Amino acid sequence: MKVIFFDKVKKHIFNKFHTFLTILNKSSLLPKRSLRVAVLGSSGAVGSELIKILEERNFPISELILLSSSRSAGKKIIWNHKEYSIKEVNEKSFENVDLVFASAGGSISKKWLSTIQDQNSILIDNSSAFRLDENVPLVVPEVNPNAVFTHNGIISNPNCTTILLSLVLAPLSSIAQIKRIIVSTYQSASGAGQLAMEELKLLTSQSLQGNPQKPKILPYSLAFNLFLHNSPMQLNNYCEEEMKMINETRKILNNPSLKLTATCVRVPILRSHSESVNIEFSKAIKPHEAILKLKESQGIDIIEDYQANRFPMPEDVKEKDNIAVGRVRTDLSNPNALELWLCGDQIRKGAALNAVQIAEILLQNHHE
Amino acid sequence: MKVIFFDKVKKHIFNKFHTFLTILNKSSLLPKRSLRVAVLGSSGAVGSELIKILEERNFPISELILLSSSRSAGKKIIWNHKEYSIKEVNEKSFENVDLVFASAGGSISKKWLSTIQDQNSILIDNSSAFRLDENVPLVVPEVNPNAVFTHNGIISNPNCTTILLSLVLAPLSSIAQIKRIIVSTYQSASGAGQLAMEELKLLTSQSLQGNPQKPKILPYSLAFNLFLHNSPMQLNNYCEEEMKMINETRKILNNPSLKLTATCVRVPILRSHSESVNIEFSKAIKPHEAILKLKESQGIDIIEDYQANRFPMPEDVKEKDNIAVGRVRTDLSNPNALELWLCGDQIRKGAALNAVQIAEILLQNHHE
Repeated sequence: MKVIFFDKVKKHIFNKFHTFLTILNKSSLLPKRSLRVAVLGSSGAVGSELIKILEERNFPISELILLSSSRSAGKKIIWNHKEYSIKEVNEKSFENVDLVFASAGGSISKKWLSTIQDQNSILIDNSSAFRLDENVPLVVPEVNPNAVFTHNGIISNPNCTTILLSLVLAPLSSIAQIKRIIVSTYQSASGAGQLAMEELKLLTSQSLQGNPQKPKILPYSLAFNLFLHNSPMQLNNYCEEEMKMINETRKILNNPSLKLTATCVRVPILRSHSESVNIEFSKAIKPHEAILKLKESQGIDIIEDYQANRFPMPEDVKEKDNIAVGRVRTDLSNPNALELWLCGDQIRKGAALNAVQIAEILLQNHHE
Repeated sequence: MKVIFFDKVKKHIFNKFHTFLTILNKSSLLPKRSLRVAVLGSSGAVGSELIKILEERNFPISELILLSSSRSAGKKIIWNHKEYSIKEVNEKSFENVDLVFASAGGSISKKWLSTIQDQNSILIDNSSAFRLDENVPLVVPEVNPNAVFTHNGIISNPNCTTILLSLVLAPLSSIAQIKRIIVSTYQSASGAGQLAMEELKLLTSQSLQGNPQKPKILPYSLAFNLFLHNSPMQLNNYCEEEMKMINETRKILNNPSLKLTATCVRVPILRSHSESVNIEFSKAIKPHEAILKLKESQGIDIIEDYQANRFPMPEDVKEKDNIAVGRVRTDLSNPNALELWLCGDQIRKGAALNAVQIAEILLQNHHE
């Protein structure tokens, strides 16, 4: 009897809070009509995937404006059975635009931010430029969807490795407090863009012909080779990519003191990232408990067949929305830690899909 | 004055101990003459590298006997400017042989062990068959050379990833006690043999031609793909390769309770392994202290240029004797832990070279 009463009170408070949030958020949502959507960096690996995803998911678009630098301007793209021409971005590109997806790098996002904001347009930015800005929400929709509503015209899309990692950390942290995380990554060429993917194929082909050539896009050849991530080295001897993983994960999980260390490695894979993750909890968690929790979480497929020795591979998640997790087992060096393995499509969930999912949260009043 | 006295006493004790060891060990050494040496599995990736290394290092050989299964018998090999024919192994193959190197797999080593022992020949075995046998020394010459002298006719060569890892753990453990190790590997196709290397090239070529084919040697294609090591899964949900790394490292470092966990991954690399290693010590170790210690250790090159963002890569160690270590930095999640990165040639230091180095310890009286 008492329990039912308290449950009712809880539900009442929750409903009131939800109504309050909805009122508060109205102004932060996208208008309740078909939208004028611009894609900045639309010829890149992430940009072109994003356009494909907008079509697949029937995003309500009245006009699609494809933008790029002068280098790619003029390129034609078929979208929703119609040919579009990529235009060079200029001061007028964002006139009356409701929503901008940017994936042309931090300097481009910074350059056009004020122009975009002058139009009261919302920017979903795939660059790292604003991710750690405390006025800019950094969102993985399955993890911290409500952060979207705190935006002031710009929402950041996290780094690829961070998105994949936070998808597993969030549900697991609901079982027990996470004390420490140690990650080693296996990152594909796509993280360095379309040209790096093409270079991997070209250099591999040349290497197979016994004619190895020097790289032009990445600092070292990825042909049958791998190297520690080449993003700028920081003063603490971690590279920028590793620090993104650490700082962005802390922000997304709203845990600024989360203990986390990372080694980021580029491997000769085309478009999927993998991560070897060690998670220490405040108490022992049984692997099957963790698997159950991950199974019921959004955005995650479990690939774990011990008898067949079959676990996630980059090829499994290629062009897939969900990441794949498996080999969840108790760390042999610490009974309170779990070891697990995950793979996710870097271009899709690691970038383009996550950005579109953020935009979809802003369409809430479209469903009323 | 006092210090000099104690130094003399120390030196005296050391000399006495060394003489004692030498007398004790005479019987375990190889005869002081040119040797009859057999190589079992001489057509494989490790076997053929081993033959090359014996020539490079002027190993004292009066007769070289190249052995294999019937499949490779008859194959010709040039060694020291002379053509040799590989013979099918049989009961008489080991007659009057002083030393046998075996790298044809555990079942072959087991099959021929008694025949080899009947000849009072010493077997240096590259298979995992006897590695954890308490009567068989497991040796990395830079780490536990004296273990060699305890042999009873058979000495085991450790697993490739274990050799590379123990090369860095041994010197670092002399600075401070190691509390816990967490490793993720990036293992080349060569670990699965010559045919797996050829398959990686073939499947990659087919994939580049838009005609991806199924693998025959490895369970999944490594062409622009990677997967958790496919060695048999153990009851604790670790694969055999991971357990080798854990158990063999404990034995080599003579630390049966060493806390260690591993995730072993096959990547599309031809012949060098890499490892992302997290080492927790009993106290904080400065990265430059660790680097200094590693620099003065045998078998290790340091590749660490933070300004140029240049650290070890598989290509750096290809066909090299030394492993390469770099990116030694303080773990951001634990001030008492270091993160480091290493690469080593799997066929050479990970297998063939280490076996020859073991044999060289048995040549001690050749230098008297």
